[in-house]
Amino acid sequence: MDKSKLTIEEMAVFCKRKGFVYANSEIYGGIAGFYDFGHLGVELKNNIKKEWWKTFVQERDDVVGIDGSIITHPMVWKASGHVDGFTDILVDCRKCGSRFRGDQLIQDKLKIETHGMQLEEISKILKEKKLRCAKCGSDLGEPKRFNLMFNTNVGPVQTSSSAVFLRPETAQVIFANFKLVQENARLKLPFGIAQIGKAFRNEISPRDFLFRMREFEQMEIEYFVHPDKQEECNFIDEVLDYELNVYSADMQKNDKAMEKITIKQCLNKKIIKTRWHAYWLALMHKWFVEFGANAEHFRIRQHVKDELSHYALDTWDLEYEFPFGWKELQGLSNRTDFDLKKHMEHSKSDLTIFDEETKKKIVPHVICEPSQGVERAFLVFLFDAYSYDKKRDNVVLKLHPKLAPIKVGIFPLVSNKADLVKKARDVYDEMKKEWACTFDLSGSIGRRYARADETGIYATVTIDFESLEDESVTIRSRDTTEQVRVKISELKDVLKKYMDGEKLGKLGKKVE
Amino acid sequence: MDKSKLTIEEMAVFCKRKGFVYANSEIYGGIAGFYDFGHLGVELKNNIKKEWWKTFVQERDDVVGIDGSIITHPMVWKASGHVDGFTDILVDCRKCGSRFRGDQLIQDKLKIETHGMQLEEISKILKEKKLRCAKCGSDLGEPKRFNLMFNTNVGPVQTSSSAVFLRPETAQVIFANFKLVQENARLKLPFGIAQIGKAFRNEISPRDFLFRMREFEQMEIEYFVHPDKQEECNFIDEVLDYELNVYSADMQKNDKAMEKITIKQCLNKKIIKTRWHAYWLALMHKWFVEFGANAEHFRIRQHVKDELSHYALDTWDLEYEFPFGWKELQGLSNRTDFDLKKHMEHSKSDLTIFDEETKKKIVPHVICEPSQGVERAFLVFLFDAYSYDKKRDNVVLKLHPKLAPIKVGIFPLVSNKADLVKKARDVYDEMKKEWACTFDLSGSIGRRYARADETGIYATVTIDFESLEDESVTIRSRDTTEQVRVKISELKDVLKKYMDGEKLGKLGKKVE
Repeated sequence: MDKSKLTIEEMAVFCKRKGFVYANSEIYGGIAGFYDFGHLGVELKNNIKKEWWKTFVQERDDVVGIDGSIITHPMVWKASGHVDGFTDILVDCRKCGSRFRGDQLIQDKLKIETHGMQLEEISKILKEKKLRCAKCGSDLGEPKRFNLMFNTNVGPVQTSSSAVFLRPETAQVIFANFKLVQENARLKLPFGIAQIGKAFRNEISPRDFLFRMREFEQMEIEYFVHPDKQEECNFIDEVLDYELNVYSADMQKNDKAMEKITIKQCLNKKIIKTRWHAYWLALMHKWFVEFGANAEHFRIRQHVKDELSHYALDTWDLEYEFPFGWKELQGLSNRTDFDLKKHMEHSKSDLTIFDEETKKKIVPHVICEPSQGVERAFLVFLFDAYSYDKKRDNVVLKLHPKLAPIKVGIFPLVSNKADLVKKARDVYDEMKKEWACTFDLSGSIGRRYARADETGIYATVTIDFESLEDESVTIRSRDTTEQVRVKISELKDVLKKYMDGEKLGKLGKKVE
Repeated sequence: MDKSKLTIEEMAVFCKRKGFVYANSEIYGGIAGFYDFGHLGVELKNNIKKEWWKTFVQERDDVVGIDGSIITHPMVWKASGHVDGFTDILVDCRKCGSRFRGDQLIQDKLKIETHGMQLEEISKILKEKKLRCAKCGSDLGEPKRFNLMFNTNVGPVQTSSSAVFLRPETAQVIFANFKLVQENARLKLPFGIAQIGKAFRNEISPRDFLFRMREFEQMEIEYFVHPDKQEECNFIDEVLDYELNVYSADMQKNDKAMEKITIKQCLNKKIIKTRWHAYWLALMHKWFVEFGANAEHFRIRQHVKDELSHYALDTWDLEYEFPFGWKELQGLSNRTDFDLKKHMEHSKSDLTIFDEETKKKIVPHVICEPSQGVERAFLVFLFDAYSYDKKRDNVVLKLHPKLAPIKVGIFPLVSNKADLVKKARDVYDEMKKEWACTFDLSGSIGRRYARADETGIYATVTIDFESLEDESVTIRSRDTTEQVRVKISELKDVLKKYMDGEKLGKLGKKVE
């Protein structure tokens, strides 16, 4: 058995045991599809969101953010098509009442691909293949559409006019605010509007731990371009030589394997239609790799014709190879001007932009909407960080230092020497101003190292008897167990450099 | 007219005009009590949350965080008392159907204090004073209790067993996870568990812009102590000399004015009962002041007997003087062991902690729960930062540098000299790695300064013709308009020091 490879169920156990994730309201038996993030989980999740925002909003001058509300005017969802079309196919058992998603039932039982399968086809397959209840084996009822939006009522009386929805995606809140944001932030095409926030989907059968939840968080950019300038991507040079696993609709149709090629090749061979689309796909892929994920576990996969959403001209998913198969991390659609036009139509508001060149009013196109589930990113980083070190006979969680929930552990060598503990605490008090730190004095130093490694603490600093004499401490690397000795006065600087990627061995005197 | 003082309505206009806050789904007419944060608002809100988390979680070793889900098991709210008791008094007009909160109607019409008024008393006053509909003047119906929790259904079929609530507060999610967090984070009493996240209340009449919303965000700590050691607050020395405006239940009862006294005096005179309560009140007050709020606009006010919640032994509110009066920012309750005991009773789970000293199992007491609405903090910082500068004839938003949405503006002096613009952009590209920056080349430099001041940009950097020759730039202070000249190579260091509180005049060569 490869102890470094966890199933999704084992990952859930690990996350609970170490304080990353709990089932919501576990003391009351939990509630399917809802999870709470524990003391380490909240930090990892916040770090993911922070670094994403820094990369895609703060460091870019063509993207600004917003933070819209979860309960949104129902007309937003009428206009967007969600009220009528945001459905899954529900089948229930005539006998035990268990409910299933039609496509998932087919996928699980027949092991065939169901991307984009509609009601009629699902109904046909269920009947032809005589599929039965996955729980009790009885007959299934007629499949029907089920809307995935949660609804509630605003105000003291429940009437149809007080009915509202919890947003099932963050995108529409961006479209509804499009004009105000564009004007106030004085944005000129091309530009993006980003949002991080919760979304809710009343999934028929939530599954695979954090992968398919009913309450989740999205990190999303809607990127708008001039309708006549969809090919002018001024950043494309940055990614032309970037290489990734590509799985086009053609390859899928012709039963070919995915190919590792560059963005340049994708464009030259017209595998990816627009430069902007290629640019954002590469950028999102790169972001994961930069923060420690393994590029080999990713591919970009084009939607086949049947699975394209009602609003999309072309969609590519960024996929990751989970223990339960290749799954979507992000759907990057070319949404065209579908949404803005729908909102113009339903709101009678003018959402156009004045084009100074042609003196015309134009409706921008969403050339791409990189939309990432925070919890899926959370899983990716955990799976790729989780490793088992044979020599240490211990789990080591090799999270990128920027993502690690706790960066530094401060350990007094022994716990029963007051001056040593005091010295360690002084060091701790200094370091925690800079980073999330932990102070641990219980158990042997080896036990403390092991505990730190398991939760991804990037560096541990041990204060020993010598420290009291020479004001120096030992820094130990989580990833290599390498140790160096540095002066306390230099500790902050050294740790900073180490976290910025310098080799620990070069930052102090090696300890043998 | 004092142009520096805005009403709440004027603040809403300012927030919309500058890109801080919009009514949710404004293009569809909005929806009362729901707001979206624009490109500057999202940054200010994130900064507030980040600094709060840094102060109260990261820099403390006795507090850890969690991030629980919004939709929570309904038993959580049954146990906590919310299903039965989380109500406001609703009165409606028999003729036009308008709905009012009974206590607010009394407060607005009769200008009397209604803290903690119950159904019977409200009903009596409404009748005795013959109050009528605030809208059409007709008769009012019988007042009744109205539960403020939003509900929805989980899963494909709406039955009573699928009914769930959107959390009306973050506190209960902490209690439900109490034991898991305590064990996994290996916490020893006294300790706190913190959470930042959305909460939802179906307010009968949301009002005062961001002050009373239906969807809002809380930053909360539940602080647990040993039941027998409620007086042992090891941090109390840190705040004994801290001075603040105090308005006790006694002062209120005897129609006395609030007094400016120290925490020490509060404790000596037994105005505040427990040290922990005093400690957290001071700390929260201090946090606001440290991030730029004006201490004179705050007071702590004790709940009078009638307004105490069902779970609370003693409650103090941290209040702020808004344009519409003194209002609650935080309620700091001593919740005793009420919640943990209720959850033990309803869940049959053991939420006790083993006391190594007495070898007994104990139920910790929540000595204090500092619970701050993010949007109320947002308003406080905006009101106290908003000022009108006569000399400049312009609004200057003097937000603390840590809170300012954009820290640095980079301005090329003119926009039609390619090499100058390029140099400015190079500077911008460097600075934005460190801080949220903006690059602005449209309009006169004076116009750009004015625009920057209005949105709180802490420092502006101008690149001029001289910069091309001597590699130096001009930094201008938002607050004083003072300007200094520094080398580009030193710019990052100088800006860092300036943001950390050093005087700009001492960091470079003064420009006259």
